[in-house]
Amino acid sequence: MDATAEPSPAIETEGGGVWRSPVGKPLRLESGANLEPLEIAYKTYGRLNETRSNAVLVCHALTGDQHAGSPNPLTGRPGWWDRVIGPGLPLDPRRYFVIVTNVVGGCMGSTGPASNNPKSGQPYGLAFPVITIADMVRAQAMLIDSLGIETLFAVVGGSMGGMQVLQWAADYPEKLFSAVCIAAASRHSAQNIAFHEVGRQAIMADPDWRGGAYEAEGVRPEKGLAVARMAAHITYLSEPALQRKFGRELQRDGLSWGFDADFQVESYLRHQGTSFVDRFDANSYLYITRALDYFDLAAAHGGVLAEAFRKARHVRFCVLSFSSDWLYPTAESRDVVRALNAAGCRASFAEIETDKGHDAFFLDEPQLDGALRGFFTSTAQARGL
Amino acid sequence: MDATAEPSPAIETEGGGVWRSPVGKPLRLESGANLEPLEIAYKTYGRLNETRSNAVLVCHALTGDQHAGSPNPLTGRPGWWDRVIGPGLPLDPRRYFVIVTNVVGGCMGSTGPASNNPKSGQPYGLAFPVITIADMVRAQAMLIDSLGIETLFAVVGGSMGGMQVLQWAADYPEKLFSAVCIAAASRHSAQNIAFHEVGRQAIMADPDWRGGAYEAEGVRPEKGLAVARMAAHITYLSEPALQRKFGRELQRDGLSWGFDADFQVESYLRHQGTSFVDRFDANSYLYITRALDYFDLAAAHGGVLAEAFRKARHVRFCVLSFSSDWLYPTAESRDVVRALNAAGCRASFAEIETDKGHDAFFLDEPQLDGALRGFFTSTAQARGL
Repeated sequence: MDATAEPSPAIETEGGGVWRSPVGKPLRLESGANLEPLEIAYKTYGRLNETRSNAVLVCHALTGDQHAGSPNPLTGRPGWWDRVIGPGLPLDPRRYFVIVTNVVGGCMGSTGPASNNPKSGQPYGLAFPVITIADMVRAQAMLIDSLGIETLFAVVGGSMGGMQVLQWAADYPEKLFSAVCIAAASRHSAQNIAFHEVGRQAIMADPDWRGGAYEAEGVRPEKGLAVARMAAHITYLSEPALQRKFGRELQRDGLSWGFDADFQVESYLRHQGTSFVDRFDANSYLYITRALDYFDLAAAHGGVLAEAFRKARHVRFCVLSFSSDWLYPTAESRDVVRALNAAGCRASFAEIETDKGHDAFFLDEPQLDGALRGFFTSTAQARGL
Repeated sequence: MDATAEPSPAIETEGGGVWRSPVGKPLRLESGANLEPLEIAYKTYGRLNETRSNAVLVCHALTGDQHAGSPNPLTGRPGWWDRVIGPGLPLDPRRYFVIVTNVVGGCMGSTGPASNNPKSGQPYGLAFPVITIADMVRAQAMLIDSLGIETLFAVVGGSMGGMQVLQWAADYPEKLFSAVCIAAASRHSAQNIAFHEVGRQAIMADPDWRGGAYEAEGVRPEKGLAVARMAAHITYLSEPALQRKFGRELQRDGLSWGFDADFQVESYLRHQGTSFVDRFDANSYLYITRALDYFDLAAAHGGVLAEAFRKARHVRFCVLSFSSDWLYPTAESRDVVRALNAAGCRASFAEIETDKGHDAFFLDEPQLDGALRGFFTSTAQARGL
C-alpha cells in the first residue's frame, strides 16, 4: 500500500473560520457590559461523529491562538500543540473532533481591543470592556452550542487554558464528560500579578502606545511590548533550564565591553521580544493579562474552591503540573485536586518531573504525552468512543 | 545619669567625603581603559584606632550607596544597613571604624556615567567605560590605602556587596583579616543575566534615554528606569513573602474593571518604580548591572573557583544565605564555601531560614543580626579588638 497516496486524515478534516454571534445575542460580560457583535475565530481538526460525543475543546494560553494543530498562517511556525493534536497523537483527529478557539480579547480573529468598535467606527483600544476567564468560556460555550454540541468529550488546556478548563467545570459542568487542566491554578498569585503589572507598565510607558489608541494613529508600541514579553518569558522557563541551555555562553569570542548582547541568553531573550511583536497586539496583552489577574475561582464561590466543582461530580478530571514550574507551582495544582476531592469529583493527578519549567506543556516532554494519551484512551473507552 | 546629655557616639564620629585619586594615578580598569579623574564618595562611622586594626569596609548592593549607617540625605530615609551599623549593633562604631563607599559607576558622588567627561566637558553617558566588580574593588583599595589602612579587620557585603567581598579575597587577600559574604554568588547565572537584560532594554526603549545622552539633553528616562526597577524588585522578594504581604488584597472595595492599580501588589510595585527614579541614575543602572553580569570569579582563575582563594588561607570567612532567596540561592553560597574549603580557607556558613527572599539582608531578620554579631565578636577577639 502506498501511504503517500492517502492524504493525511488530519489535513483532510481541518476546518474552522470565524463564528459571529446572532444579532441581538451579545456576549454578556462579568463586568456587566455587553459585547456585540462577537466574533470567535476557531480551527477544527477531525469530524464530529454521529452521536456528537467526540468533541474536544482545546483552550490556549496567554499568547496562544487557534492554530494549535496546524501551522500558524501569520508566523509560518508549527501549531503550538502539534505534539498533541494529530494522527497517532493523544488527540487524534481520526477519533476526536478537536476545536480550538481564539479567546475573546485576543488578536487572531476573535473580537478584541483591535476590533472595530461599532460605536465609534474606530478600533476599540481602551474602550474595549475588561474581560475575564469566565467571559472567554461563555463565548466558547456560545460557539459550541452553535455547532450543535451538547456535551464535550473533553475540555483541555495548559496555563491560562487550564484556568478556562476549571471555569468550564464551574460554569458548564453539564456540558463536560472530562476535563484536563495542565500547569494552572485556581487563582493568580501576588507574584504573578506583579509580573503582569511589569509587562503592562512597560507597554503603557511606550509613547507609541498613545493611551491605547495606537491603531488609529498608525503606530505600535513595539518596544514596550517586547520588554513585556522578555520579562514574562523568563517566568515561563526554569532557572536550571536556562543554565543548561545558555549558562554564561557568549555570542562571540570575548566580551564586548559594552551593551551589545554579549551572552547568548541576552540574544535569545531579545529575539523572544522582537519576534513576539510581529504576532501579538499590545492592547490584547493588557486585556488578557488583566483577565488572568482577576481570576479567582474560589472567591467567586464564597471563598471555598470546592464549591466551584460541586456540580461536576460526573466529570473525569486530570490535573497535571511540572516540577520546575515556578509560575504555577505544583502546590497550586494540588490545591485544585484537593478541592475536586472535597467536592466529590474523580480526579487523577500527576506532577511531571522536568526541568523545562512552565512552558513544558508544549515542549518535548514524553511524560506529558504519555499522561495525556493514557487519560484520553481510558476516558474514551468510558465514553464508548 | 542622664543619657540624653551624652551625644550618640555614632553621630559624633561620622565622617566621610569625596576622595579624589592623585593626578597621574588613574583607576586602571579590567577593560584596559583608564579612568581619570577618579572620585569615590564615602562615609565613615567610628574612629580608626591607633594600631589601625579596626577598619571595616562595607560594600553596597546594586542600587545601594555609602549612606549605610545614617539617613540618606537625598531621600531622607534611614541608612540601608542601620540595623547593623550603630551603637550596640553588630558593627558598633565605638569599636570599629566602618567605611562605606559608593562604587565606581554609581551615582551618589563617585565617578560614574553622569560625571563630567574631561574629554568632552559633557557627562560621560555611554562614553563611560564598562566597569567590573574587580574595578569597584580596586577603587576601594586605592581609597583604603589613602586612609593609611594596611589591613581591614573585615570586608562585608550582601548581594553585589558580597561579590565585592569575594573579589577582595581574590585580589587583596593580604589586606584582609576577615570577610563576610551575604546572599551572593561567585558568578551571575543565566536567569540573573536575563532579568538584568530586561531592565536594560526597558531603559534603552525609553525615548528619553537618548542613546545615553539624556543628561546633556535635559531629560531622564524615568518610565524605562521605573519598569526596570519593578521587574528587578520582584526578584528581591520571595513568592511566599509577596503572598503573605499582599495576597490578592485590593486597593479599594471591588475591582476597577480597568487598568488602575486594583491589587495592592500593583500599587506597591508602581511605588517601587517611581520612587526609585528619584534617587537613581539610569546609565548607572546599565553599567552596574553589566558589571554584575560580567562577574565570574572562577572564569578569571582558570575555571577553578578555589584558585581565586588560594592566597586567602589566613582570612576568616563567613558565608550567609537565605532559604527563600531565589536570586542567589543557597546552592550558590554552598559552591563558594566548597571552593573556600578546597582552597584551605576557614569558612563558617549558615543558611538563614526566612521567607523574606533576597532582600532579607537589610530587613528585620534577627537570625542575621545574631550571625553577624557572633562572627564579629569572636573575630574581634582573635584580632585583639
